[in-house]
Amino acid sequence: MVYDVIIIGSGPAGLSSVIYAQRAMLKALVIEKLPMSGGQILNTEEIDNYAGMPGMAGFDMGMKFREHADKLGATFAEGNVVRVDVQDKIKKVHTEDGTVYETKTVILANGAEHAKMGVKGEEEFGGRGVSYCATCDGAFYRNKVTAVFGGGDVAVEDAIFLSRICTKVYLVHRRDQLRAAKVLQEEVLHLDNVEVIWDHELQEITGEGKVEKVIIKNKKDDSLRELTIDGVFIGIGMAPQTAIYKDSGIALDERGYIIAGEDCTTNVPGVFVAGDVRTKQLRQVITACADGAVAITNIERYLIENK
Amino acid sequence: MVYDVIIIGSGPAGLSSVIYAQRAMLKALVIEKLPMSGGQILNTEEIDNYAGMPGMAGFDMGMKFREHADKLGATFAEGNVVRVDVQDKIKKVHTEDGTVYETKTVILANGAEHAKMGVKGEEEFGGRGVSYCATCDGAFYRNKVTAVFGGGDVAVEDAIFLSRICTKVYLVHRRDQLRAAKVLQEEVLHLDNVEVIWDHELQEITGEGKVEKVIIKNKKDDSLRELTIDGVFIGIGMAPQTAIYKDSGIALDERGYIIAGEDCTTNVPGVFVAGDVRTKQLRQVITACADGAVAITNIERYLIENK
Repeated sequence: MVYDVIIIGSGPAGLSSVIYAQRAMLKALVIEKLPMSGGQILNTEEIDNYAGMPGMAGFDMGMKFREHADKLGATFAEGNVVRVDVQDKIKKVHTEDGTVYETKTVILANGAEHAKMGVKGEEEFGGRGVSYCATCDGAFYRNKVTAVFGGGDVAVEDAIFLSRICTKVYLVHRRDQLRAAKVLQEEVLHLDNVEVIWDHELQEITGEGKVEKVIIKNKKDDSLRELTIDGVFIGIGMAPQTAIYKDSGIALDERGYIIAGEDCTTNVPGVFVAGDVRTKQLRQVITACADGAVAITNIERYLIENK
Repeated sequence: MVYDVIIIGSGPAGLSSVIYAQRAMLKALVIEKLPMSGGQILNTEEIDNYAGMPGMAGFDMGMKFREHADKLGATFAEGNVVRVDVQDKIKKVHTEDGTVYETKTVILANGAEHAKMGVKGEEEFGGRGVSYCATCDGAFYRNKVTAVFGGGDVAVEDAIFLSRICTKVYLVHRRDQLRAAKVLQEEVLHLDNVEVIWDHELQEITGEGKVEKVIIKNKKDDSLRELTIDGVFIGIGMAPQTAIYKDSGIALDERGYIIAGEDCTTNVPGVFVAGDVRTKQLRQVITACADGAVAITNIERYLIENK
């Protein structure tokens, strides 16, 4: 069987894609790595910025998206995609167990992962006081104290964002100067409620049931210091899940993101991309879902033009 | 009072914008023309492609979006915006009743309207058998008979889309040839279940409680013909609601859409655009909401850079 479209990944981008595909009566298959749909949001405690679904647990939102796809009769297969052959008109998607799927088009919706610090407490408190996105979670820390780790644009923007919400924000950086854009640096250094702590790195996140403290280490003299905080924001970047596409002929940028504009169309005919794995400015549930809609619309046109 | 951002329009784009604005703690105001939020979807019988909210009445979706914004403490004002002065750093938004609002940035989220045929029955059956978007509503006509009116890309794509869903599709055009792209023409003319009716125009839509028939008129001899159908799709284009921006200095394209890419940033510093009123490929609730998120994110950066 040759599918009209195979969607790799079942996060918001993949699920929105298949919702549009089902409504367009395309023969579609979603291949998902885990036995559960939702992607990154499965580990998100609460999502409060997806219009119409205020204050929803990420897990529940994943289930709602999946139920929506199921209601429309979507087909899912579990499998870990290890290779794609996409240069021919009929494309092949290989999973780890040796299955080969054939399809006319493919949507790469593998997602991205926030880079981890790899310290004690980070995983334990993930989604319960440890966050990787101030835009997503900052609003939950109103009138509280937070610490941001990092020194690039993301971390500094997170600190500025949080300064409007929190009573106090620590910005902790392991060097003695920031990497962020000059204008961001100037802004953050002039905010009364942001304290920048130089030359320190995160050592441990502690607390009873929830985050209460971080232990940071002075990189110059190895001395330790405790900060009493309510939340930790780690702003050291994201890692797109694109290792399997390295030799596929699909163009990636220098950070590994799949290159495509708003039209979600890659350099390879019949190959489309949706969600966090695409080169884009803002990686959010709502923008991932929008990509899914756009990708399917362009696939409909592609299928007509490439009979 | 000078707002951080004024959002003109309270459809999905405007409401998603204010949801992001509230979470970013910006001083935001939404100005809406009607005493009810939701925009175009208020008149949509059912929306089934917004991930997570399957098969929801458009009116209910509008209410859900508004409740979400209210929950976050969003501020709304009723008013018909008649002019904007946006060239200075502090921008002015004028409403019909003479009120002048001041703001550092503005999001134009006025929306667009589907062009109407202006025939008897069109308004009466709007949302109950008369649709302006096959991507949105086509799936509701599974195994039914529909008629599409128009001859450009939109109408022909609608007919192709519906051919996969419906048992029979009439494509009715008032001329003796289509305007659509060649590849679309070829496709539609070869579909077994699409019958193209040339040189006819829509005269009336009739039925008891729901659409049952259309009466079409032969433009050559004025003879009338009846088609028994379950749904009517009108694919003659959209009209962006941008008349008030004509002399503002904000760049519009030849059809009146506000020119901006995925970053929702117009040619005028501090002026952003979201939703159907922007130059974009796919006008859907989900893409409108994504715009709102992106616009606010760029406004946060703009406000830092333009203190």
